[in-house]
Amino acid sequence: MTKQQTWSQRFESALHPAIVRFNASIGFDIELIEYDLSGSVAHAKMLAKTGIISDAEGEQLVNGLEQIRLEYQEGLFVPGIDSEDVHFAVEKRLTEIVGDAGKKLHTARSRNDQAGTDTRLYLRQKIAEIRDQLREFQGVLLDIAEPNVETLIPGYTHLQRAQPISLAHYLLAYFEMSDRDWERLGDVSKRVNISPLGCSALAGTTFPIDRHYTAELLHFDKVYANSLDGVSDRDFAIEFLAAASLIMVHLSRLSEEMILWSSHEFGFITLKDSCATGSSIMPQKKNPDVPELVRGKAGRVFGHLQAMLVVMKGLPLAYNKDLQEDKEALFDGVKTVQACLEAMTILLREGIAFQGDRLAAAVTEDFSNATDVADYLATKGVPFREAYNLVGKVVKTCLLGGKLLKDLTLEEWKELHPAFETDIYGAIAPQQVVAARNSYGGTGFDRVRKSLIAARDRLSD
Amino acid sequence: MTKQQTWSQRFESALHPAIVRFNASIGFDIELIEYDLSGSVAHAKMLAKTGIISDAEGEQLVNGLEQIRLEYQEGLFVPGIDSEDVHFAVEKRLTEIVGDAGKKLHTARSRNDQAGTDTRLYLRQKIAEIRDQLREFQGVLLDIAEPNVETLIPGYTHLQRAQPISLAHYLLAYFEMSDRDWERLGDVSKRVNISPLGCSALAGTTFPIDRHYTAELLHFDKVYANSLDGVSDRDFAIEFLAAASLIMVHLSRLSEEMILWSSHEFGFITLKDSCATGSSIMPQKKNPDVPELVRGKAGRVFGHLQAMLVVMKGLPLAYNKDLQEDKEALFDGVKTVQACLEAMTILLREGIAFQGDRLAAAVTEDFSNATDVADYLATKGVPFREAYNLVGKVVKTCLLGGKLLKDLTLEEWKELHPAFETDIYGAIAPQQVVAARNSYGGTGFDRVRKSLIAARDRLSD
Amino acid sequence: MTKQQTWSQRFESALHPAIVRFNASIGFDIELIEYDLSGSVAHAKMLAKTGIISDAEGEQLVNGLEQIRLEYQEGLFVPGIDSEDVHFAVEKRLTEIVGDAGKKLHTARSRNDQAGTDTRLYLRQKIAEIRDQLREFQGVLLDIAEPNVETLIPGYTHLQRAQPISLAHYLLAYFEMSDRDWERLGDVSKRVNISPLGCSALAGTTFPIDRHYTAELLHFDKVYANSLDGVSDRDFAIEFLAAASLIMVHLSRLSEEMILWSSHEFGFITLKDSCATGSSIMPQKKNPDVPELVRGKAGRVFGHLQAMLVVMKGLPLAYNKDLQEDKEALFDGVKTVQACLEAMTILLREGIAFQGDRLAAAVTEDFSNATDVADYLATKGVPFREAYNLVGKVVKTCLLGGKLLKDLTLEEWKELHPAFETDIYGAIAPQQVVAARNSYGGTGFDRVRKSLIAARDRLSD
Amino acid sequence: MTKQQTWSQRFESALHPAIVRFNASIGFDIELIEYDLSGSVAHAKMLAKTGIISDAEGEQLVNGLEQIRLEYQEGLFVPGIDSEDVHFAVEKRLTEIVGDAGKKLHTARSRNDQAGTDTRLYLRQKIAEIRDQLREFQGVLLDIAEPNVETLIPGYTHLQRAQPISLAHYLLAYFEMSDRDWERLGDVSKRVNISPLGCSALAGTTFPIDRHYTAELLHFDKVYANSLDGVSDRDFAIEFLAAASLIMVHLSRLSEEMILWSSHEFGFITLKDSCATGSSIMPQKKNPDVPELVRGKAGRVFGHLQAMLVVMKGLPLAYNKDLQEDKEALFDGVKTVQACLEAMTILLREGIAFQGDRLAAAVTEDFSNATDVADYLATKGVPFREAYNLVGKVVKTCLLGGKLLKDLTLEEWKELHPAFETDIYGAIAPQQVVAARNSYGGTGFDRVRKSLIAARDRLSD
Repeated sequence: MTKQQTWSQRFESALHPAIVRFNASIGFDIELIEYDLSGSVAHAKMLAKTGIISDAEGEQLVNGLEQIRLEYQEGLFVPGIDSEDVHFAVEKRLTEIVGDAGKKLHTARSRNDQAGTDTRLYLRQKIAEIRDQLREFQGVLLDIAEPNVETLIPGYTHLQRAQPISLAHYLLAYFEMSDRDWERLGDVSKRVNISPLGCSALAGTTFPIDRHYTAELLHFDKVYANSLDGVSDRDFAIEFLAAASLIMVHLSRLSEEMILWSSHEFGFITLKDSCATGSSIMPQKKNPDVPELVRGKAGRVFGHLQAMLVVMKGLPLAYNKDLQEDKEALFDGVKTVQACLEAMTILLREGIAFQGDRLAAAVTEDFSNATDVADYLATKGVPFREAYNLVGKVVKTCLLGGKLLKDLTLEEWKELHPAFETDIYGAIAPQQVVAARNSYGGTGFDRVRKSLIAARDRLSD
Repeated sequence: MTKQQTWSQRFESALHPAIVRFNASIGFDIELIEYDLSGSVAHAKMLAKTGIISDAEGEQLVNGLEQIRLEYQEGLFVPGIDSEDVHFAVEKRLTEIVGDAGKKLHTARSRNDQAGTDTRLYLRQKIAEIRDQLREFQGVLLDIAEPNVETLIPGYTHLQRAQPISLAHYLLAYFEMSDRDWERLGDVSKRVNISPLGCSALAGTTFPIDRHYTAELLHFDKVYANSLDGVSDRDFAIEFLAAASLIMVHLSRLSEEMILWSSHEFGFITLKDSCATGSSIMPQKKNPDVPELVRGKAGRVFGHLQAMLVVMKGLPLAYNKDLQEDKEALFDGVKTVQACLEAMTILLREGIAFQGDRLAAAVTEDFSNATDVADYLATKGVPFREAYNLVGKVVKTCLLGGKLLKDLTLEEWKELHPAFETDIYGAIAPQQVVAARNSYGGTGFDRVRKSLIAARDRLSD
Repeated sequence: MTKQQTWSQRFESALHPAIVRFNASIGFDIELIEYDLSGSVAHAKMLAKTGIISDAEGEQLVNGLEQIRLEYQEGLFVPGIDSEDVHFAVEKRLTEIVGDAGKKLHTARSRNDQAGTDTRLYLRQKIAEIRDQLREFQGVLLDIAEPNVETLIPGYTHLQRAQPISLAHYLLAYFEMSDRDWERLGDVSKRVNISPLGCSALAGTTFPIDRHYTAELLHFDKVYANSLDGVSDRDFAIEFLAAASLIMVHLSRLSEEMILWSSHEFGFITLKDSCATGSSIMPQKKNPDVPELVRGKAGRVFGHLQAMLVVMKGLPLAYNKDLQEDKEALFDGVKTVQACLEAMTILLREGIAFQGDRLAAAVTEDFSNATDVADYLATKGVPFREAYNLVGKVVKTCLLGGKLLKDLTLEEWKELHPAFETDIYGAIAPQQVVAARNSYGGTGFDRVRKSLIAARDRLSD
Repeated sequence: MTKQQTWSQRFESALHPAIVRFNASIGFDIELIEYDLSGSVAHAKMLAKTGIISDAEGEQLVNGLEQIRLEYQEGLFVPGIDSEDVHFAVEKRLTEIVGDAGKKLHTARSRNDQAGTDTRLYLRQKIAEIRDQLREFQGVLLDIAEPNVETLIPGYTHLQRAQPISLAHYLLAYFEMSDRDWERLGDVSKRVNISPLGCSALAGTTFPIDRHYTAELLHFDKVYANSLDGVSDRDFAIEFLAAASLIMVHLSRLSEEMILWSSHEFGFITLKDSCATGSSIMPQKKNPDVPELVRGKAGRVFGHLQAMLVVMKGLPLAYNKDLQEDKEALFDGVKTVQACLEAMTILLREGIAFQGDRLAAAVTEDFSNATDVADYLATKGVPFREAYNLVGKVVKTCLLGGKLLKDLTLEEWKELHPAFETDIYGAIAPQQVVAARNSYGGTGFDRVRKSLIAARDRLSD
């Protein structure tokens, strides 16, 4: 019934009600309505400009579309499942409002290029928002880092203490990851912000349309050069989900560390009440739910990426209904990344407190200055590999005797190798160990200060 | 504020509002409410039976929970985001209804075992429904197959015509796949239907609970033998999603063939209006949206499977908040499989019509009887590999001359090999070619008839 | 050239050399040669038994095939890329050895059912091996658990200390996971051990073969009931990879804990030299490479699972060349799981040492006995939720005062709630806290002892 | 034993032999040897330039490393499993050749930054090769397209005939996809070509190294700004695998169409013997193995992408052994993409022949000119939606009467709508239908000619 009105009269009987439900996308593509309206406004203006419809008709269409926008914003336009999708819902309402002119809106376009246009406008907007969120997150990292250049924290490889580092240096590592995320999304944007509008069903159109004009109205950088490609390309959604997956990789790594650090065993941070939750049964519990949930949500975004790759694999050209599956994966991917970035930004900004005492104690109680002994010897001409072997031996001896390197007497040092002098004690003091790694990109304090300045500069670009 | 009421007084200040939103699962775990209530009823009965609470208290709790069930069903109980999750929402409402007794419900359990119980009860129910849907789908396959034993259709390998087959034989292949799906879900069920209730937070409880009693009330087959395992196991969800992915593999293969067969080029089936859709711009179009969408949705289920594997990878024991991510993946996996099975069942039952003429013509116009010529020779003692080579040569000659095998004269056959007699014509006639493949599991008509009977028998088990 | 010999004379010119390389599977399917030979031996015996070939020919074929087996084992049979795959390589060599009879071996079968047979025989064998490895791994878990029933270790949720548990109880959790893995592989086996041999190319055969006889010779439980399904089914490989992924989930969780526990901060275990590695630069380092690598390899197996799902999605019946991709994914999945099980078994058996002092100290220094205080009050009639709230408050007070629960005086307890008596001290002592959780599946010592006995019993089944 | 030589003397006993095998990466990272040698040469030169070692030592090291390169190329240097990895294998051999100086090579670096450097050098090279392959592939697309501007072929949506298109237009769609692939790999390269060398273990070094000098010697664009990030970043590998997955999406779509088009039913192309394969049993078969295998291999690359995401998820900083898993996924991803691009290029260039007669016939036998009738009316002022409905009706009438649109008489047209004139016949003739879609990016011949010129220009950039 309804269907005869939207599809052609080729069809005699109506869809099975279960199939109506199965096919309908209005339940989720309503998310695109603002973009759909903007796309239609641009299309209508172009139709008028090129004389395909009259100026009066063009104006009617634009006004009708803007009226629908208002109705939607005020909750007056709530299309049901019989509308199939947001595009038909709008066209139907438009025809109710403006009459016959509404039936001209779909001249020289199809839902294929229309849906593609909407999705790209949506994603362009969301990428811009996510990039802003990344910048905000980076800002918070710097806010914590700047006063903590000389705060030491154990550095790990294999989750074994390796070498002490500056807390600021640690935070700058995440600054760098986020910076790549920000840059990468910029690259993705180049391939998102291309207009498929006017590719029509698959082959372009016989009408004298002006695709560059609609692209300009909608602030697209370019137009698709091939109509088949324009309607069947979903690279941009996959590329975004891959970039989103990398953001989640980074956030999940940071989350893992927040979880470790807030454990009783590490104790490097405490969680504030505003960002921690309790147990329903154990009264003492204070749980790092936020980073755990972020860590878990990584899987969700990876899953969406895989889903979209599977959808696209082996699809013949051009549009196939399978492509409708792009929306929910993309929308949930966007929402998840945005929610996780927001939550982690809040967590860092106001949800944790570094435990200075624990950190200060931590860096003095282990063998993470052993490399510095080897370096000390290497500087005095002992081949590094030999120095390394010697130091391994002394570590073993210390472990057996329950000592640390700083506890060795000068005699003991000299016994190990005659090159040791009294300056060895300075060389292995934690502050000095960190300060001395002043190679480019290293954790030395001077180096970290320079890095912080450079990082702030990047944020204000 | 609200939080102080659900968590312990260890907490002083309230959660950040954005973190409330981020953590809350009530938006989706409300789906579990019926199961949560049933689980709580069983728990309350057990607490009373074991004397942990009084019988009167037990009765109060059960009545209160059943009242909530009614309120929910009537739309009167609509918990908001401040309830965090369905478990707290119910406990809070219960305490409003029954007072102090409500505060005793959570004795000797935690949300960890409670959520695990709910999810297993939900999945057990859904698996039963999906198995019924599989049986219905299989029934439809047989309905089409039974009158089509002698309807021939090209059989393909590499999408190249290979050997003609019985249409019923083709449909039985999908019957078999669905049968494995049905059986596999039965195996999965064994590992779903195990009760974690009473594992408590992670270590069991000091109260004299009776886990076998709650398990019996809830129709669980077994109880988890280890409490740490009981609260942190999500194997059952992953195992279900893997089985669901295989269902989607099968449905996507059938979908691909429905799409191919309804193409202009194949033309083996036509789509009826009740299961096909049109284009917004091309008036002649009639599109196989249903199988396309099913094919696309395969990616979605694979994605959920991957998501859950990622969530679980490397998680230390026991419960971690990451596990909350199991719900949406599982729920959407269930819904997708159910919707796809329903849609494909409708499609097969009333959405397609086989085109007898096209099928009959198809099997007479190609070289898919070439193997039968080789078999003919092999039966007469020519080593198969030699026979195969000879037939390849005659196919090449025919192709060059624009002939089919049936067009060769007896002289031409004899020239190829003296063993050919006039019975070669019978041997390569399509009906005979199919009828003759009577090996067990083969497409021969007698064999297929037996298979159909056996298949019907299995359905009525 | 070569190609004309294996394929029919329909082909005139040879394959492009790069395409020969691209298509060839001999580089990896040589792994199947023993199974291919066994399958061919059974096929030859059946051909003779059913009179399709003579007994003498049958004997020739069997002898020839066994000679190839010897040649292969002695390194004398090394097929090159011109053989395309293991099947053609064997057939070619066989014909060299036995002459014309060799050309009869391929009567009534195709590579499609042959490759399927080989792969199932291979996987059946590997599943049996993996199940044995799981049993060995479980045995090692019990070996460590049995003397450690009363060794306490902190139990965690959210990586926050929750309640102390028995070390044996912890190890039993992994015993249970492995038990499910063992059981699950048993279920998978049912769907692996089905013979496709005799399904031929796709439709069965015109020869009077006896599929049940070859199945019996090859110890298959059943034969495929539908030939199309038999040659195009890869469910069994996917189902195995899903089960393998779950094994990797479990091993990755254990790995994560081994990594945590061997960290400086936890210090619950030390790594022995036989299972730890050093750094190339930091002389003090001793790294848990084994569990890290196992954890990382989880991704690899999940990736193979996804790869196979993607391969199968939307493939029309019956055989398509895409299916060749099953082998490398499956082989590497098998190898990875086997290597990881072996490595983790060695690691547990001889690579770690529990640090009794650290463990003993750990369980006395935190608030993981807080639930027991709430339970204490609940037992005395205070509604659990109220008790829980009270205890939260006392934890907060203790934290501010730098005290633990055991440090509170009886007056302080009574001030909190009059129900406290002097027995509260006993109730919150770590040994008692653990001993008291004697609910079924709980960590109470008596319960754990019973679980250990039951576990040993299962191993000796 | 061996181990004491590479690791420090902290270790007393040797690794378990099974663990040696489990940990060793030499079996696959030998692929990096040329890059490892180049990286070490640069490091040695830098150590000499900065005075950390003497010029003479520097020269010795460089000469020794170049000797190893020759030995490797001549097959004289074949490190075994006792070398653990390519880095230790080279260092050991170097020390054999140059003595004590060899022990100085590892000063101020670790395997963490070294392996990272090698992998980036490898990937940079492979990306350059793949981009060249993409350009070659695009060239072949244009070679076929240029003479086929006016060759018509049915255009599809939903695999239903939609509108006829120019064959050149179709091929240009794949040109565009490949162009995005080429561009995207360029963007990926920016984040691959950054030097981690000198990040050392995780924190930089105390030696006065010059990271910009080694970067310059190795032609890196930049150096990592943060040492923790430098040694633990694997974004570049994931980003490459995501880009590789998109290449595989595109190739799998083209493959699907090659498979469809070479089917009996479509018959748009025939396969030449050089790129097709036969069946082992069906003598008439000629199978499109190449595109099938390419389509299947898409799953493999998606699997590697997922594997790497899983490896990285939740890893704490900095280096963890899990990262060793990056190599096999990356190497196989590179090889698969290269092999598929090579095979598809050969297939298009010399493996297929378009069947002009079939294509010409195809575009005249359906209703794919129905949109043009609607457009015709819309041009004459009938609102598009009305026109669309009318044409749907006429299609239904034609279908019932067994007619095509071109078979309608002018009277019949006028009955439908008075606006039809005799020029309707021209408007719906296939050549005209295609020619008229001259909108930007459309399939109109003039438009396609311009697109071809622009495409050639891009190739010669």
